[in-house]
Amino acid sequence: MIPTYSADMDPEQFRKYGYTLIDWIVEYFSHPERYNVLAQVRPGEIREALPPSPPDKPEAIEDVIDDLTRIITPGLTHWNHPGFFAYFGTTASGPGILADLLSSTFNTNAMLWRTGPAAVELEVVVLGWLRQLLRLPEGLFGIINDTASVSTLVAIAAAREALDLGIRERGMAGRPDLPQLRLYTSDQAHSSVEKGAIVLGIGRDGVCKIPVDSEFRMRADLLEKAILDDRAAGRKPFCIVATVGTTSTTSVDPVSAIADIAARYGLWLHVDGAYAGVSGMIPGMEWVLAGVEKADSLVVNPHKWLFVPFDLSVLYCRKPEILRRAFSVVPEYLRTTEEETAINFMDYGIQLGRRFRALKLWMVIRYFGAEGLRERLQDHIELGRKFKQWVEKDPEFELLAPVLFSVICFRHIPSPYSHTMDASTDRLNIHNEKLLDAVNATGEVFLSHTKVNGKYTIRMAIGNLRTTEVHVKRAWELLQEHGRRLAKESF
Amino acid sequence: MIPTYSADMDPEQFRKYGYTLIDWIVEYFSHPERYNVLAQVRPGEIREALPPSPPDKPEAIEDVIDDLTRIITPGLTHWNHPGFFAYFGTTASGPGILADLLSSTFNTNAMLWRTGPAAVELEVVVLGWLRQLLRLPEGLFGIINDTASVSTLVAIAAAREALDLGIRERGMAGRPDLPQLRLYTSDQAHSSVEKGAIVLGIGRDGVCKIPVDSEFRMRADLLEKAILDDRAAGRKPFCIVATVGTTSTTSVDPVSAIADIAARYGLWLHVDGAYAGVSGMIPGMEWVLAGVEKADSLVVNPHKWLFVPFDLSVLYCRKPEILRRAFSVVPEYLRTTEEETAINFMDYGIQLGRRFRALKLWMVIRYFGAEGLRERLQDHIELGRKFKQWVEKDPEFELLAPVLFSVICFRHIPSPYSHTMDASTDRLNIHNEKLLDAVNATGEVFLSHTKVNGKYTIRMAIGNLRTTEVHVKRAWELLQEHGRRLAKESF
Repeated sequence: MIPTYSADMDPEQFRKYGYTLIDWIVEYFSHPERYNVLAQVRPGEIREALPPSPPDKPEAIEDVIDDLTRIITPGLTHWNHPGFFAYFGTTASGPGILADLLSSTFNTNAMLWRTGPAAVELEVVVLGWLRQLLRLPEGLFGIINDTASVSTLVAIAAAREALDLGIRERGMAGRPDLPQLRLYTSDQAHSSVEKGAIVLGIGRDGVCKIPVDSEFRMRADLLEKAILDDRAAGRKPFCIVATVGTTSTTSVDPVSAIADIAARYGLWLHVDGAYAGVSGMIPGMEWVLAGVEKADSLVVNPHKWLFVPFDLSVLYCRKPEILRRAFSVVPEYLRTTEEETAINFMDYGIQLGRRFRALKLWMVIRYFGAEGLRERLQDHIELGRKFKQWVEKDPEFELLAPVLFSVICFRHIPSPYSHTMDASTDRLNIHNEKLLDAVNATGEVFLSHTKVNGKYTIRMAIGNLRTTEVHVKRAWELLQEHGRRLAKESF
Repeated sequence: MIPTYSADMDPEQFRKYGYTLIDWIVEYFSHPERYNVLAQVRPGEIREALPPSPPDKPEAIEDVIDDLTRIITPGLTHWNHPGFFAYFGTTASGPGILADLLSSTFNTNAMLWRTGPAAVELEVVVLGWLRQLLRLPEGLFGIINDTASVSTLVAIAAAREALDLGIRERGMAGRPDLPQLRLYTSDQAHSSVEKGAIVLGIGRDGVCKIPVDSEFRMRADLLEKAILDDRAAGRKPFCIVATVGTTSTTSVDPVSAIADIAARYGLWLHVDGAYAGVSGMIPGMEWVLAGVEKADSLVVNPHKWLFVPFDLSVLYCRKPEILRRAFSVVPEYLRTTEEETAINFMDYGIQLGRRFRALKLWMVIRYFGAEGLRERLQDHIELGRKFKQWVEKDPEFELLAPVLFSVICFRHIPSPYSHTMDASTDRLNIHNEKLLDAVNATGEVFLSHTKVNGKYTIRMAIGNLRTTEVHVKRAWELLQEHGRRLAKESF
């Protein structure tokens, strides 16, 4: 049968259910206490509650919303909850969510200028805004990717292309003319650096992990030594990935010194500022991005700490022509007359299809304003400072890393026992793992962990816009309370 | 200052602007005639209309919506418009948009089971549903990626890992033990195959493009010959990418015969069914996915022709343990106790962060039901058949490829002139390019092009749920009208 009517949901029905879901979301945001931040379900539980086969006939939206409320939502871990302190604090802010609704509606694909001129040009404009907020140099090329994993992979690919070894055309295998390629990053760098190297055929052995100093910053002297050693051994250094805000402890590598080494040996410098980069916009925190102006590329993630719903990662690059050389493949069906006069973003990355992500960053910047963004970041840092002080003042807790932003790394050491029993690292590790599990099992807050110098470390990451001092305080109370209780039980 | 209140948009304000935007969207869907399907703007025009610097102070949402209405929306190319016939027809359906609104709200990251149990398990369930709809074998592993570019890259990476040449650890450069790697695909395959090979260090030279038959299908005999030639020359065949629904003409490679060749020589077979794969669910169209049960991996894109808002690409794989070997990198801060009992999707792909995409596919399948989905796909195919008949019956138009789904490839040949003037391919190419531009300049419809055997080819791609026979008919009238007019002017 030939459709003579729209086969989609009727507009009035869309209005009705649109309102219903907006109301649902208001209720969701108004009552975070109804949900466990970390889902308290066992593997397989949600799956068993859902039918294993698709329905033949249409189902009522009411029934889907009912399942959403009864089964799905309680089974989620709530990243947008004021008690979410795991990994890095993130926010899907109200204005960000509303803008993303429009992106879904337009379904615009910003792959070519022609397929979404306003999407492409808004991306250029809003990345210009962000660049100014971060006080980065003019003329930087910017592109939105989905994740930092992709932004970093793209940057390393550009570094590989910049070698001019014909890898795009001839590949890397079966070429006796190619030396082993070496990439340098600190032993605190994010796993995406290693994954990028694996994907690109550099291999894990091609990743040289430079040791860090006592504050978890890459040792520039050891970096230079590693480069010289590799050169002497006939290997080919090609890329350095420095980090501004490592995932474990938020340490900041000495970017300026690293940039000088990169320049000295002709290496591509990529800076991973996915988490902490945005804090460079705070007055007095220029040090965060100091030296980045000498880097070849930088990733910052507005979906982490700039209140934009996931996903939106920004890659800035000083050498877009290298990105283009590394990635541009234009088949006939994607040729357009604007190739020389406009940007076709598909030429600068892996993905052809590109969601209209610029809209949510634009909305967020306009809704909060530059001042509002800076204030909110400062508020999170202030909350972090307060939490850090509580940790420092309590003799049963130990701070395990400097607090530079809004992530606090610490552990519990039951004090009356630690001396007498000379508690071993292993025993304290088990104790702190139990403590973290106990606190997370309350459902009131969710924190995550790392290891610092072999010590099991609890991480408190503050970054949600709905988080207030009440939530941070509650996390601290739970840590103290369960810490004492567990200490009595096991020490 | 320490926040003692939510620093996000107030919930009642969210309700107010949520309603406003739902109304805005209803208006947008109700009046597609107000927008040019292909934006009629020049490069730079939108950019110049926007402030080059971010606002310091918060701005009113009303002002942002006003700019959205006045500047952004008219400057977009409208992929969700009933007159969008370019590339592949896509739909962000009502239910899909509403579900995506919830994904933005939750901001859940489905990287680990623990970080979104219901998101991860719904992904497993809904990919089971889709698998059943497509009548694919049980036990297939499924994962949602953003785009087919990524799904295909991941599949080729798995093929590389399956070689057991230690590429994950040792990389590919500087290894005299590695032969040149060779990947086979037809000369009609999507550009993402070549891009994937470039990224993975296979190189363009590693991609062997097999010629096609008169209906644009990979020649299995020439594939086998190429593999044998490569082996004889010391190169290492490792992967075949077959296509079900090529981008130019929607041709379907002989997957079953290709699978037998893959098995004979121990190659990984990946099938790119990004566009046409979903039509395998239509009764009587089992042939579309015939042989795919023998493939190692398959990509289908619900965001293309299954009414799900961009982005949602599905990768099915028979060998998830290879995917995991290729991609799993687990740092301490991402370790969880459920590693052995639950799926952590981050282990099976490039991106660590993963948006909660399963929700929109779940909503779309439940809202339309399996029967509703099949009927809608059949309707598009029926519309395509009708358009094809119009082309065939008009002596001034020439069909340039078989019509298998809902994409029609054709060109205009002004008939009274073509005989007397013996119009050259070049002249007809210029004429048809002008014709396409003229039709697209009306703003009523948007079609795109390709080249078929050197002939400039207009592509009519039907696939939007709001498209009815009226829109298809209008496209045809415009093609006839402007074809005649341009012929008079230039022939």
